[in-house]
Amino acid sequence: MPHIKLPEGLQGIRGPMAYRPETARPLNELAEILLHAPNSLAPGERELIATYVSYLNDCYFCQTVHGAIAAAHLNDDEQLVKRVKADFQHADISNKLKALLVIAGKVQKDGKLVTATDVEEARRAGATDIEIHDTVLIAAAFCMYNRYVDGLATWQPHDEELYRQRGKKTAKEGYVTMSKEYIPQQQPAAHGA
Amino acid sequence: MPHIKLPEGLQGIRGPMAYRPETARPLNELAEILLHAPNSLAPGERELIATYVSYLNDCYFCQTVHGAIAAAHLNDDEQLVKRVKADFQHADISNKLKALLVIAGKVQKDGKLVTATDVEEARRAGATDIEIHDTVLIAAAFCMYNRYVDGLATWQPHDEELYRQRGKKTAKEGYVTMSKEYIPQQQPAAHGA
Repeated sequence: MPHIKLPEGLQGIRGPMAYRPETARPLNELAEILLHAPNSLAPGERELIATYVSYLNDCYFCQTVHGAIAAAHLNDDEQLVKRVKADFQHADISNKLKALLVIAGKVQKDGKLVTATDVEEARRAGATDIEIHDTVLIAAAFCMYNRYVDGLATWQPHDEELYRQRGKKTAKEGYVTMSKEYIPQQQPAAHGA
Repeated sequence: MPHIKLPEGLQGIRGPMAYRPETARPLNELAEILLHAPNSLAPGERELIATYVSYLNDCYFCQTVHGAIAAAHLNDDEQLVKRVKADFQHADISNKLKALLVIAGKVQKDGKLVTATDVEEARRAGATDIEIHDTVLIAAAFCMYNRYVDGLATWQPHDEELYRQRGKKTAKEGYVTMSKEYIPQQQPAAHGA
């Protein structure tokens, strides 16, 4: 049972987002820019970083829903998502993404663990500065989302099909669109007196 | 030296915010709502929660600048800020804030550590649901900001007076105003052809 009274029937982060739309707005905007907006890292790659960090933080809701979004971006390859969580160094992903996952894994523990050598390895594998920046911020942001979801003891049903459907929807529509399901729309500003 | 090329002369989070204004916007909006906007928790109380979590995460920039903002809100009582970091149970703060700091300290480690008893204690000390929600999200958010600042190895000069001045300014103006120093303003939309 959630620690505070949240709107019912909304799993994971959707409960507290509906409860507090003021904070939901920037939280969704951040996810939209980091995970869904155009970027030289593909959406599937960015969702794998989010999934891996959520797995390290042992957040059931986030690793399952972002794993489903990643799979939806990656030709429904759910096995690849599982492999990245369990042993990404031997997964069928690029060396660049492997180097970025090393950085993300360190940020999950403590940002100060990231070394110049880690960053150099990522650059050698082809990562740009902005890709390194975004990897650090995705990993950091999921240290927030995971704690938000678990710290309020949100409802996290164990129903893979529910997450699969949600994953397909979010992969297609992104986060800002999704948030319109439960965040009241801004009224157009009235002009004149 | 920062891991990526950041604009020079901007300490801590201000470097990557100027580098990537797209993500700076929601990051600042979130801070504004959580720490500066009207709330039944005073700004000084919310800044103490942010400072305490940043101290637990050992982030020099965040604990120092938010400690300075907290002090600016609290009649320049820098000793109180130090006491909260070192031993908040014996600091001169309300029992409600102590109970909320217990929750924040658990969120910093892992959201799943927060128990129904912790929340019940906070309620007994007078905390409302939204105050509990905001405490969890402030603590979670600083697990992000701290990792963002440290994961990129940002410039964090050890100059207390610099942070004191910045603290006074942010306590007065908030976060959205601050961000206008280095985030390009949106152009008014052009109408017509």
